[in-house]
Amino acid sequence: MRLAVFGAGSVGRSVAELAGEFGHEVVGLADSSGAVVDDGGVAVEAALSTKDETGTVGDGDPADVLEADYDALVEATPTTLGDAEPGFGHVERALKRDRHVVLANKGPVAERYDNLMALAADSAGEVRFEATVAGAIPAIATIEDRGPENVPAVRGVLNGTANFILTRMAAEGLGYDHVLAEAQDLGVAEADPSFDVQGTDAGLKCVILSNLLSGGGFSLDDAEVAGIEGIPGSALELAAEDGRTVRLIGEASREGVRVGPRLVPEHGTLAVSGTINIVQIETRHGGRMNLSGRGAGGPETATAVLADVRRLSR
Amino acid sequence: MRLAVFGAGSVGRSVAELAGEFGHEVVGLADSSGAVVDDGGVAVEAALSTKDETGTVGDGDPADVLEADYDALVEATPTTLGDAEPGFGHVERALKRDRHVVLANKGPVAERYDNLMALAADSAGEVRFEATVAGAIPAIATIEDRGPENVPAVRGVLNGTANFILTRMAAEGLGYDHVLAEAQDLGVAEADPSFDVQGTDAGLKCVILSNLLSGGGFSLDDAEVAGIEGIPGSALELAAEDGRTVRLIGEASREGVRVGPRLVPEHGTLAVSGTINIVQIETRHGGRMNLSGRGAGGPETATAVLADVRRLSR
Repeated sequence: MRLAVFGAGSVGRSVAELAGEFGHEVVGLADSSGAVVDDGGVAVEAALSTKDETGTVGDGDPADVLEADYDALVEATPTTLGDAEPGFGHVERALKRDRHVVLANKGPVAERYDNLMALAADSAGEVRFEATVAGAIPAIATIEDRGPENVPAVRGVLNGTANFILTRMAAEGLGYDHVLAEAQDLGVAEADPSFDVQGTDAGLKCVILSNLLSGGGFSLDDAEVAGIEGIPGSALELAAEDGRTVRLIGEASREGVRVGPRLVPEHGTLAVSGTINIVQIETRHGGRMNLSGRGAGGPETATAVLADVRRLSR
Repeated sequence: MRLAVFGAGSVGRSVAELAGEFGHEVVGLADSSGAVVDDGGVAVEAALSTKDETGTVGDGDPADVLEADYDALVEATPTTLGDAEPGFGHVERALKRDRHVVLANKGPVAERYDNLMALAADSAGEVRFEATVAGAIPAIATIEDRGPENVPAVRGVLNGTANFILTRMAAEGLGYDHVLAEAQDLGVAEADPSFDVQGTDAGLKCVILSNLLSGGGFSLDDAEVAGIEGIPGSALELAAEDGRTVRLIGEASREGVRVGPRLVPEHGTLAVSGTINIVQIETRHGGRMNLSGRGAGGPETATAVLADVRRLSR
């Protein structure tokens, strides 16, 4: 397929870099301040080197990428809340041109799902968003293949940063601030970690899952979200005495969305370690499925984008 | 979709029973000695009651089901080795009629993959076989969506009977024969358990996975298979002293197929309990994915068949 990639952060970069290996061609690549468009195929390595040197992939207008001759737009700009712009506008333009859209940006799927599906209904293009939930893990495809109507509920560990912090605190008996600083040193937590540790990121993922199960109707405002900020080491010690540990668990169903720290069995399925994510899918007739793997990272999340592109090609 | 279901054991029955709920219609249902065909939709409950009373679903000729007006044939007759007949012949007839085929029967996919794919290449029908590996778990779809060429290896616990026996032996300190008898009482093991405990069943599933990764070339003869028959309780005790346990692990790659008892960490990902299965998929760029869930059972395996049917409808 011919891909236009909007966003050149870690996921957008990886999609552009891996596209050729997966049999696709990048005909446009944009970041917030510049772009390259080439119907004959963008020279991806050169564009990314230009970005490393100059801060942008090229001297084109980012908007021109939306008008390029692509089959699918990969929307990988940073997640924004509320109106989910500018990502939503990019998606809108692609669908109005009857092109497919593959999202890594959670904003449009979590905050404006109903608008998104209305645009998709009027378009010959299809919308896919595997990469918005749990990185490399095939949560969305599995729910789709089983039929969202056959899935009463989904829960899981959906934020690797928060899980890393909880895992290290429990394993080493260290305090929250100490482990957070360590996570920041390792690049596992951002300088401003609030999006992850306050539960917002996990909340958005659960909103997306509830939208998928329900056919829409949810946004972050509907979610009951608590994070792990400042959780005391003593809470983890008490849990351990009882053979349990604490995980930031997200829960999505047709009834609502909840995210918060929960006690889980220490060696149980939900107690994944470090930055690993797990998605537990309850199904009618098929029982519970557990899908775990790398929930973040450029190449890992790019493989979910490219799996969506492959499903579009079927 | 209009389905013809060949085989009315636990999986075939469940497919027929659940088809309506999943939006499909059963136009033919056969077991080895009889059949019902109805272009207007088979009365499934009545046919299954007839089977309970008389031993067969109806007084039609099973071969007539293959000529019914269906979109997809569900092949759910018992797995046979070698020429994989009569299942292979059913599949051949459907593909020659340009109909889709969804297999729950492992025989044709493990023993005659190359023949099967040659028939599919000449047919407008597509062949799918999610239900042949690990019951409800979406192993095949995940490998397909990621691209078999991006999966160097797959391993896992693929036989619930063997896993139940090993789990109980380790947890209770009981001997092999005692636990096998218990498993037979519970219906977890067959009266003749050799297919499961000798590793044949897990071997067939790994052969199917290696065929998927390689595009063919493998049959059970190429697999190195050891089972758990008569494994001594002392082996499990020794493992436990070292924080490990024993699992019957199957390994599939382009290089070959191996199945045998292996030491795994006691609380590790592969040490699933009881009849649960787990499939570990190594991916290029996306890391390792773990998919666990119910690896057997009529309704569970039927959901995999119906997920395949849904993928055909896309």
